[in-house]
Amino acid sequence: MTGEARVDFRVHPDQYRHWRLACAGPVATLTMDVAEQGGLTSGYELKMNSYDLGVDIELYDAVQRLRFEHPEVAAVVLTSGKDKVFSAGANIRMLAAAPHPWKVNFCKFTNETRNGIEDASAHSGQTYLAALNGTASGGGYELALACEHIMLIDDRSSAVSLPELPLLGVLPGTGGLTRVTDKRHVRRDLADYFSTRPEGVGGQQAVAWRLVDEAVPRARWDEIVAERARELAARSARPASATGIELTPLAKTRTDDEISYPNVSARLDHGRGVAEITIRGPGRDAPASIGAVHEQGAGFWTLAMTRELDDLILDLRTNELELGSWVLRTEGDPRRVLACDQLLADQHDDWLASEITGYLKRTLKRLDVTSRSLIALIEPGGCFAGSLLELALAADRSFQLAGVREDIDPDADPATVTVGPMNLGPLPMSNGLTRLQTRYLGDEPGLAAVEKRAGEGLAAEDAGQLGLVTFAPDDIDWDEEVRIALEERASFSPDALTGLEANYRFAGPETLETKIFGRLAAWQNWIFYRPNASGPDGALRRFGTGQRAAFDRKRV
Amino acid sequence: MTGEARVDFRVHPDQYRHWRLACAGPVATLTMDVAEQGGLTSGYELKMNSYDLGVDIELYDAVQRLRFEHPEVAAVVLTSGKDKVFSAGANIRMLAAAPHPWKVNFCKFTNETRNGIEDASAHSGQTYLAALNGTASGGGYELALACEHIMLIDDRSSAVSLPELPLLGVLPGTGGLTRVTDKRHVRRDLADYFSTRPEGVGGQQAVAWRLVDEAVPRARWDEIVAERARELAARSARPASATGIELTPLAKTRTDDEISYPNVSARLDHGRGVAEITIRGPGRDAPASIGAVHEQGAGFWTLAMTRELDDLILDLRTNELELGSWVLRTEGDPRRVLACDQLLADQHDDWLASEITGYLKRTLKRLDVTSRSLIALIEPGGCFAGSLLELALAADRSFQLAGVREDIDPDADPATVTVGPMNLGPLPMSNGLTRLQTRYLGDEPGLAAVEKRAGEGLAAEDAGQLGLVTFAPDDIDWDEEVRIALEERASFSPDALTGLEANYRFAGPETLETKIFGRLAAWQNWIFYRPNASGPDGALRRFGTGQRAAFDRKRV
Repeated sequence: MTGEARVDFRVHPDQYRHWRLACAGPVATLTMDVAEQGGLTSGYELKMNSYDLGVDIELYDAVQRLRFEHPEVAAVVLTSGKDKVFSAGANIRMLAAAPHPWKVNFCKFTNETRNGIEDASAHSGQTYLAALNGTASGGGYELALACEHIMLIDDRSSAVSLPELPLLGVLPGTGGLTRVTDKRHVRRDLADYFSTRPEGVGGQQAVAWRLVDEAVPRARWDEIVAERARELAARSARPASATGIELTPLAKTRTDDEISYPNVSARLDHGRGVAEITIRGPGRDAPASIGAVHEQGAGFWTLAMTRELDDLILDLRTNELELGSWVLRTEGDPRRVLACDQLLADQHDDWLASEITGYLKRTLKRLDVTSRSLIALIEPGGCFAGSLLELALAADRSFQLAGVREDIDPDADPATVTVGPMNLGPLPMSNGLTRLQTRYLGDEPGLAAVEKRAGEGLAAEDAGQLGLVTFAPDDIDWDEEVRIALEERASFSPDALTGLEANYRFAGPETLETKIFGRLAAWQNWIFYRPNASGPDGALRRFGTGQRAAFDRKRV
Repeated sequence: MTGEARVDFRVHPDQYRHWRLACAGPVATLTMDVAEQGGLTSGYELKMNSYDLGVDIELYDAVQRLRFEHPEVAAVVLTSGKDKVFSAGANIRMLAAAPHPWKVNFCKFTNETRNGIEDASAHSGQTYLAALNGTASGGGYELALACEHIMLIDDRSSAVSLPELPLLGVLPGTGGLTRVTDKRHVRRDLADYFSTRPEGVGGQQAVAWRLVDEAVPRARWDEIVAERARELAARSARPASATGIELTPLAKTRTDDEISYPNVSARLDHGRGVAEITIRGPGRDAPASIGAVHEQGAGFWTLAMTRELDDLILDLRTNELELGSWVLRTEGDPRRVLACDQLLADQHDDWLASEITGYLKRTLKRLDVTSRSLIALIEPGGCFAGSLLELALAADRSFQLAGVREDIDPDADPATVTVGPMNLGPLPMSNGLTRLQTRYLGDEPGLAAVEKRAGEGLAAEDAGQLGLVTFAPDDIDWDEEVRIALEERASFSPDALTGLEANYRFAGPETLETKIFGRLAAWQNWIFYRPNASGPDGALRRFGTGQRAAFDRKRV
């Protein structure tokens, strides 16, 4: 699964093999109809609407396009094109054959997509409705759990289930355990029982246990699904008559050593285990009005940069496992970044401005849960301001050059960082706090001091004193300090780094999302790695062979 | 380490090999002075105040005795008897040689002890002060982090450090990562840097980064430590002139198949992988007054039962890894349980009543984080009322017999459960909610309906309807249903059960404690299990050999 062709996350509805997207006024229908022979890699068949990463890449694309290309859509019906089955969840043979990092990455991406679906219901006025016209098992039910409203056909055979524990010896890996109790408020002992019943629960019992919102007889299915979709759509503030913008194909070039887009590029240094990423600020002044943003569409800098960064993160995360450190640099005029930010902040009631900001928020969250060491380098000519300052705040460490590089450009303006409106609310982390709030957790005076300097280009001494950057070496020490930091990082246990970063990045409160990425994912990683699941006699490997798994019975 | 002699958690200050406990009026001093040759098992030396489970068992005993035997103690100074070293943390050779379950159990117990220290500062009026008279590394610093105030000697060589990541390729496993950011509010990038520096940070820099509260010159060390201890003691409401009660030796018999105390017993069924635990209610009426509770001392039922249950949990958890399910039964008169509860609740301002309730709270928390399936069986003759009802609420599932056993005792009173004051506040889980609040998370009407029935003995039909129990089978189905539930549980992957239970038991909000047991411990379990740490070339195994660890560089 690795070592084969690189995974490409770029796709277009014309190329979908597994989904059909149909828009009819305020209601869109997204129909899952997985092509059995359409697996991303060989060795398994995607029967019964089971899915692999390729199926989820299309789903992610559809959710994104609905936001940007269909402002008129206010409710999305998620249903199945198969008879009597909604989805059997993640494909077992794919999981059983996949190496550990692939399983972990697969779960992370599918989690992000499901969180994105919830975010659309909560923040985009596009409410998702799961219309389970057949059994939803495992990841299939977890997909439904990400929807705001779950309808199950009441036909004495269709059910919802989480059969991972009894059948596969693993956990439901895409938020099921967390959402069942914390979102749907299923009683914990019923949740326990439910999760041990491979056949699941259907009909009115599923309603009584809060596993679904309603069970609907087949005879009235289409009618009631349509009615609910209209009701959900009616709650939305999306502009029915607005015109969407097209998410045009990304201009990307990709070699073994370089990934390049118009606003983002990365040099892949396999020897040092480092990806050197550069984000470029706007090449021109910000649009004069929100109307001009609509006209620029996918060409508007913030959106273009975010799409490229999103694709880059996914590409590196999936295809470049041994690049353990990502160095983050910026290039450009901080004033232009701040002007784009200001326009988006001022126009937050505009649907497109809101979508662009929300997309940037989700992309930065994707960076936060990425298991790579993030090092921000703040140098002259950079533009770590506002939305791009978030990159430095997301980093595990940051270095800002004090003064200039005497040998390179003694006349340059010293590097600055600038706090702007985008740092003060619109881009929360998954813990519900801004990155500044997380950074200054329990240090209100420190946070207030930083907020007071908003709008000001802060040189290294000031930024260091305020705690906005970790280190502020001068010209003489810079190269050495940065080199040592990167070499040292490369010498540490990659696993311990993953655990350390997963803990330190999410100081403070926990939410459904942090519980899914922290608690649930960590347990799943452990379980995935244990012989009881993935060993030759483990449950994942023995599934479907007719042989029972052989377990080491010790409880740990 | 397993397969050797059973671990015994019972100890007395007269037998301490590693600690000295000295009480002087309101200030106690707990001095760590680990005996190098005093390891619990063979194969390692406990140099530089490094510790193993045996050292921590004594610490736990000391913390408990301070609460009960020393009501006059209002502050506890935790310091070292070694020159220039406070503690080097968990012993590496012990960890490197230990099997995975041992490592996990060791971390769990040490975490519980450190949480207990925090609980003493917060709720017992015994504030812990870490007096670091030398370097505190890894678990040594984590022990200090559990104290309310940290003083570090400022001598140009003493430092605090978390060297686990750079030296051992694992995480600080006893809450360090969580407490550094969430309790002490060290900035996350500084925390990251700190955790990669094996030599740590000392002096005023440690103060500036909030790693310690003060750095004190050697010349004034004794004087200022004493001054701080007096200040902390002065804040306490502990009664200076009260008389403590002695924690007398537990009357315990232990064979391969049975563990027995006066109020608690367990049959160990190795064939079925089940421990059948019975808790007996009070054998006599509750004391007439709180004065009588003081007179009964360790003989008072609630305290006696709690001590026995605590010891049983630790014994089974450490020594019986393959008993994957614990069946919980009670025997006795629910009115007597409720009368003891009521006395404690009415007298919550009395120091001893408060300590007994707090101990029960912590023991139930220990049950919550135990990686065993918990099944409560509520049968005629039982007393699942008030504090003992918490056992059923802690269980993953409960069965209450509807009616009576016609074949056994047709004239018995049907089994009941009774909600009492102890279920409504004094015994919160580590998520900060009561077990009832966790059970009815997001279902306020359900919770209100249960609270309205407080004091009433609820038969199976009522309890089932209210959602207090999972199943209410009758005589005809009982044996079969219970048998199937236990057989089924034994057939599942032990690892997946651990993960499932760790998620479902802690629905709702997260706290420092749940973050430590959920997020942090799960990551640590994964890291411990990976070859990068525990494989023959892993960092844990290679430590001290002069050879560097060989890492699989893939980031997961």
